[in-house]
Amino acid sequence: MPSAAAASEADDPTPVSPADVRRTLLIIGGAEDRIGRSVVLKRFVKLAGGRRSRLVIIPTASSFATEVAEAYRDVFTRLRGGEIAVVDPRTRRDSGDAQMIADLDAATGVFLTGGSQVKLSQNIVGTPVGEAVLRAYARGAVVAGTSAGASIMSRFMISLGEEGVTPRQRSSQISAGLGLVEDIIIDQHFDQRGRYGRLLAMVAASPNLLGMGIDENTAAEIRDDRRMTVVGAGAIFLVNARNAITDAAEARRGAPLLVSGAVVHTLPTGSTFDLDAVELTDFVERHPDIEGAVVPATVRAARTAAH
Amino acid sequence: MPSAAAASEADDPTPVSPADVRRTLLIIGGAEDRIGRSVVLKRFVKLAGGRRSRLVIIPTASSFATEVAEAYRDVFTRLRGGEIAVVDPRTRRDSGDAQMIADLDAATGVFLTGGSQVKLSQNIVGTPVGEAVLRAYARGAVVAGTSAGASIMSRFMISLGEEGVTPRQRSSQISAGLGLVEDIIIDQHFDQRGRYGRLLAMVAASPNLLGMGIDENTAAEIRDDRRMTVVGAGAIFLVNARNAITDAAEARRGAPLLVSGAVVHTLPTGSTFDLDAVELTDFVERHPDIEGAVVPATVRAARTAAH
Repeated sequence: MPSAAAASEADDPTPVSPADVRRTLLIIGGAEDRIGRSVVLKRFVKLAGGRRSRLVIIPTASSFATEVAEAYRDVFTRLRGGEIAVVDPRTRRDSGDAQMIADLDAATGVFLTGGSQVKLSQNIVGTPVGEAVLRAYARGAVVAGTSAGASIMSRFMISLGEEGVTPRQRSSQISAGLGLVEDIIIDQHFDQRGRYGRLLAMVAASPNLLGMGIDENTAAEIRDDRRMTVVGAGAIFLVNARNAITDAAEARRGAPLLVSGAVVHTLPTGSTFDLDAVELTDFVERHPDIEGAVVPATVRAARTAAH
Repeated sequence: MPSAAAASEADDPTPVSPADVRRTLLIIGGAEDRIGRSVVLKRFVKLAGGRRSRLVIIPTASSFATEVAEAYRDVFTRLRGGEIAVVDPRTRRDSGDAQMIADLDAATGVFLTGGSQVKLSQNIVGTPVGEAVLRAYARGAVVAGTSAGASIMSRFMISLGEEGVTPRQRSSQISAGLGLVEDIIIDQHFDQRGRYGRLLAMVAASPNLLGMGIDENTAAEIRDDRRMTVVGAGAIFLVNARNAITDAAEARRGAPLLVSGAVVHTLPTGSTFDLDAVELTDFVERHPDIEGAVVPATVRAARTAAH
């Protein structure tokens, strides 16, 4: 549920009609390329307005917030972003700071870095800074997050869990996220950390939620809560357990879960997916020799090898 | 396709009618418990006839064939198996040995150990020993295999591949297996080695084949090529990509594959599955306090922790 402020702005019959506002999320699976062609981060800067953008970096998830904020400032500057501010509430009380709110209210792009998503739950969710992020999204600023910054976008956020392919009872834990994404549980570093099992266990217990696993150096670009395209070197994994048979209500702690009949989608760059209908709407093969390929194969292979 | 000998026996209108012969496979995902309650291996001995069984161990996949054969001889003796012979062709020429064939033709149970499945392709598939294994299966002897011994059962056998959740083009390789299982690709150590991606890549390219991933210390017991039950501590994973949209014909080497709309099943002990219809037919929750549980929870947890 959007905050009261965002809801009133959305309901308000202002000059900005719903048809004019394109709401955009860029949800990144962590470890995105920051030194090469930086396809994913370049996309963020472009979506935020390029040279005319006003970017806000929120490094609060990180234990090295100052250093991380400076690193992203350098990247966004190299990628020809516009003005850059840093909003870093270290406590829940910090999150009422007037300058922070003013920066967010002026932003065309907000970027949440990696670190611990629980720090973001602690210091941002349900605070004035958190509400300003929701407002920014509602008025058309792009909101991006990587790793912990990706997880926090879900209403139901995975805060910790185990690795592996087989889903197991009570193998992970849900905390309260920002709720920019209402009906999807987001997991990151998906391929690299083998998180298929924990994501499946989550949606087995809550089949109304779609499971989304995002690989490193890969992003889900979501427009208006519905239309998803894939950016970057890896893939987006989706699982729909709405019609699956499970024993999530009965299985013992640690036991492998029965999940029979879930539908899965692995979506590389070139995919367009309808998150409401839960179906692929378009796919364009990105060959390296075809103009418009997001990353040439040689670059992509080198990039992948580097992680 | 069964060997000529097996086919003629199966087609022959002998006193052994098809209704009397129950063909049984026990396909084990590796690292099965050999020192505790040994639920999986105990099932093998029971299916083979217990004290009246005549067991043949084929340790040819292993680099330490003699030691491995002796270890299994000890376990099967402890589990009250009957007579035990070892058949170990070290070369393709060895596989014509009359004593080996005689042992297999008398067997009520055949057990293929772990090691390298390519050694089994080299020394057994298409040889008289291989044909004797097919004949044993056709006349009702239980054929079991673990790890490499599981993989070799497929007609299309995964001989090598990479780890990870995201399916990638050309991430694994198929060789020729025994063909005890015709339309299923079998992978093992499934949860423990994160083999979801490579299995999905295989069935994306060959959607007529069902993908089966078996966890360690877990077995698929398959009757008459169709009815599967699950034995042991982990789960059996199945993926059906027959109606999935993929770009397996186009994707570049190493690229993440598009696989949209595959149907997956994770099946713990207590599951009964129809492999022809590709659907769950029954499930009984195995609570530790209910009589008939395959492994009590405390034992299972300890067993799992040990691997």
